Amino acid sequence: MLIEVEDDFRSSSDKAYEKIFDMILTGQLKPGEKLIRRKLAEKTGVSTIPVMEALLRLEALGIVESIPYRGSRVVPITKEKVRDWYALREAIECQVMRIITRTLTEDEIADLEKLANKLDAMEQAGDTEGEEFWELHFEMHMIMARKTGHQSLIDSLHRINLFRLLQRAQYSATEHKNQIPKDNHHCLIDALRTRDPLIAEEVMREHIYHSDSMI
Amino acid sequence: MLIEVEDDFRSSSDKAYEKIFDMILTGQLKPGEKLIRRKLAEKTGVSTIPVMEALLRLEALGIVESIPYRGSRVVPITKEKVRDWYALREAIECQVMRIITRTLTEDEIADLEKLANKLDAMEQAGDTEGEEFWELHFEMHMIMARKTGHQSLIDSLHRINLFRLLQRAQYSATEHKNQIPKDNHHCLIDALRTRDPLIAEEVMREHIYHSDSMI
Repeated sequence: MLIEVEDDFRSSSDKAYEKIFDMILTGQLKPGEKLIRRKLAEKTGVSTIPVMEALLRLEALGIVESIPYRGSRVVPITKEKVRDWYALREAIECQVMRIITRTLTEDEIADLEKLANKLDAMEQAGDTEGEEFWELHFEMHMIMARKTGHQSLIDSLHRINLFRLLQRAQYSATEHKNQIPKDNHHCLIDALRTRDPLIAEEVMREHIYHSDSMI
Repeated sequence: MLIEVEDDFRSSSDKAYEKIFDMILTGQLKPGEKLIRRKLAEKTGVSTIPVMEALLRLEALGIVESIPYRGSRVVPITKEKVRDWYALREAIECQVMRIITRTLTEDEIADLEKLANKLDAMEQAGDTEGEEFWELHFEMHMIMARKTGHQSLIDSLHRINLFRLLQRAQYSATEHKNQIPKDNHHCLIDALRTRDPLIAEEVMREHIYHSDSMI
């Protein structure tokens, strides 16, 4: 499951949230598309109040936006918006590297290395289109964020990943496959092993710039 | 006004949002306090649906939280939570410095310098308890964030500032006044004038660590 839903008392709202979220990520609701409460209530099988709650929660995550006097729509993906999210991703992930390079144990680094190797192998095989690659990719970056112990960094990165899923629902990155270096993720592991926050941060920044150049 | 409310079609919800927000920031609703929809509807003069909308928006900002099967409460300020937000603040503001040190004009730096000098003078005079100091302080940091042109960084810093207002509603920082260096904010200006992203980032990090040590 790409979507993580918190335990919550709002069960109808949860149902609407998951269903609408899924429709957005699978492209059934397209970026820019207007979200009509009554129609969504019919599709999700709940009343309009939980639909409204769900839309507000999706708005808080940044994948739905409200337009004054117009209602809500799926956030349209513009090049500017993608660059904007990459600037935030750089801020968050560089901070993650700075923190964990001083605190990870050798065993924790070895665990991350397995994920890094698997990701690099999949990228080299051109096997990056399926859900497995994206789940693994987010898992590696989210594990690193969780190791900081800072919920604010974890939540921010989770939100960025959701936006990237939305982006993926619209664009394919296949045309850039040949530009990916063999150690695209392993270089992060090498950086962590230096135990130097400045080096760790710079290698992450390069890693992100590389993805950014693929937009 | 410390709270910025976006233009929106949800006018009753806006009214509830502003009123509840104000009650939290002025300490009429205390951190940890349970938020009862019916009571809040009475106090804000709207029905329970816009109150619910307002609570979801405050939840998205991180100053209200929902507890499974219990409802909502004002986020309690713990030392851990404060450190958590400082980790995010460091990520965002270091990124802001890295970006703007390469792009600001001399005139823009000179404008920031005026704010920095005013803040430093107020800190030296021990004049940091009133709303004026906090408005000026947020203004300087928000101007720097806006100069990046990245909405994601602006929104993140705005949210962090709201959390700091909430923290301020609970704690006073007066006992630390004598620890504040004379160039607490001016050193950021000197860093920007180097035009070196690494130096700019490091000076911001020091600036934040200094505040962090005052928690």
